[in-house]
Order: sequence, then C-alpha cells, then structure tokens
Amino acid sequence: MKFCSQCGKPVDQRIPEGDNRLRYVCGHCDTIHYQNPNIVAGCLPVWQGKVLLCRRAIEPRLGYWTLPAGFMENGETLQQAACRETDEEACARVSNLELYTLFDLPHISQVHVFFRAELADLDFAVGPESLEVQLFDESAIPWSELAFPTVGHTLKYFFADRVQQHFPVRNEYLPPLRRS
Amino acid sequence: MKFCSQCGKPVDQRIPEGDNRLRYVCGHCDTIHYQNPNIVAGCLPVWQGKVLLCRRAIEPRLGYWTLPAGFMENGETLQQAACRETDEEACARVSNLELYTLFDLPHISQVHVFFRAELADLDFAVGPESLEVQLFDESAIPWSELAFPTVGHTLKYFFADRVQQHFPVRNEYLPPLRRS
Repeated sequence: MKFCSQCGKPVDQRIPEGDNRLRYVCGHCDTIHYQNPNIVAGCLPVWQGKVLLCRRAIEPRLGYWTLPAGFMENGETLQQAACRETDEEACARVSNLELYTLFDLPHISQVHVFFRAELADLDFAVGPESLEVQLFDESAIPWSELAFPTVGHTLKYFFADRVQQHFPVRNEYLPPLRRS
Repeated sequence: MKFCSQCGKPVDQRIPEGDNRLRYVCGHCDTIHYQNPNIVAGCLPVWQGKVLLCRRAIEPRLGYWTLPAGFMENGETLQQAACRETDEEACARVSNLELYTLFDLPHISQVHVFFRAELADLDFAVGPESLEVQLFDESAIPWSELAFPTVGHTLKYFFADRVQQHFPVRNEYLPPLRRS
C-alpha cells in the first residue's frame, strides 16, 4: 500500500494513537488503513463414501487436486461461500453442510474453513477454474498431488473420523510448508 | 474506496475478466482491489462457573457488556487473537481454549468466533477499552445490557450446554438486529 484509497495522497506506516501496531495511515486525511486476515471457505462433498476433488486449472498449484474452496466474499455466510465455490469449481450442488475443519495459516494471514457436505447429484462438471472434477474412493486419493496442506489434512481427518462416525470440529495451526 | 492504493490514480467499479462481481479496479495500473469479510475473535473466560464480561469504554455500544473480543490481526491464529483481545480488554490470561461458536453476519461482512476458555487467575483488570471487568454468575448476567447479539447467543448456548456438559461447536447465521 502506497497511497490512500480515500484521498489519493501517499500513506506512511506508523502506530496510531491508542494502537500498538504499525498501520498504513494517511497524513493528509488521517484515514487508518487496517489489513486483516482473509477466510477461504470450502466443501468436502461426499457421494456414497467417495469424495469430490477438482484438478486446478489456475495458479497457484495448477494441475494439483483440491477440495472446492475459495475466498469468502463480502455479504456471504461461510456456508454460502463454501457452496458458491463448489458450484463455481465443480458445477456441483451440495446440502447438509456441517462445519468440520478450521486451519490457521498466520504466515499468509488466512483461515481455511471446510464443511462436510452431501453431494446432491452426479451432475457435476468442470468449472472454469478446474481441469478435471472427479469422485475418489479413499484408496484412490492422489495424496502426493494435492494442491494445499489444508486439503490433505481435511481428507485425512475425514477418512479417520468416519471409521467411528464421529466428526469433531477441529481448529489447528498449520506452519508454512517447505516444498522440496 | 476512491483511489488506487498502489499508484494513487482514481479507481472505478467494474467486473474484471473471468470474475462475476463488481470490484474496485485501477484503470491506470490494472490492480484489482478485493474486499473481503473480517473475523472478530473472542473468549468466554470461565472461573468456577462464573464468566468474565467487560463493560465497553468505547463505541460502538459504549457502556454495554461484552465478552472480550475484537478484530483478528494479520499474522495471528484465531486463538492468539482471542487471547490477545482478552488480555487487552480484561488484562486476563486464559488457557485451554476450545472452539465454540461461529456467527455469520453477512450484513456487516463479519464472522464472529468465540472460544470457551479457562480463566487462569483472578488478576484481571480494566483495560483501556473497558469501564469495568467482572465475573458473573448465570443468574446475574445483564442480559438487557449486552453489547452484541453474538455475545448473548454465546452465553445462552453456554449455560444451556453446561447442563449436559456437552458443548457442540455451532455455526449460525445472525440477521441484522433492529434495536428499538
């Protein structure tokens, strides 16, 4: 951030009065420009024990498999965001969403939230951000070709939890991944 | 938003290619300025069955009682944000945080997240944003003087759930409140 989005004059970084963090502040109109974490919301769509994955057609991680998920938009609920992303990436309809995993990724200032969901029908298809959309048995999950750690963790928890048919909601910190 | 924070030239609103929403876009440097929901994180600190509330010294809702909570900052986890707010507003230390309530407030593009927590000691005190900080028995909760609906809902669920000693994580949509 270099310029004030309210008045267009240059901003500088300082700690506002009564605050304890560096913020971008406009010296001309005094606007404080706060920057806060973003939410990524997604679904784990299930059909007769199989889960729906999308192979990414866009960067980052083009060509890798993901659960349908993306940035929550203003004016949405978490579940609306998760359903919209599932529709956009997999042209798929889901129902009976249940909150499942929340991952803290402070190194990129994101929180990833996944819902377990029932895939409503088999009329899914490739959306503009996907190369392929496919149902996978547990034994066929492409573990080494998953796009993001939060997807792998959510899938691992799901297959472990369904043995007991008990799906506790989990909130966990994930450190930065060093890919080789 | 009137000016581009990257180059300082005026922005306009349009739907970028490959998108389906109006965004602020800079016609000069082509930067797309996304705006996304914010997370408010807080604690429900418990000490021997009593809960810790803060009477707000700042707007909005000055003079009303709240659970310690506030905007999550970049570089934090949800639990770090909840603990920091508890320290800032009530000078209180908490431990054993357990995810409890997530409220969707799409009319203000916020998600409020509360953790149940154990108050570590009785050395709490008034922080700069509080007029009073006090432990309340269930029977003494100032229900008509609570600052925000998400605080009231979290407290009601807590007192109901502790009868069974079962505290399911809840994700709910809250509509705009019309205060009389």
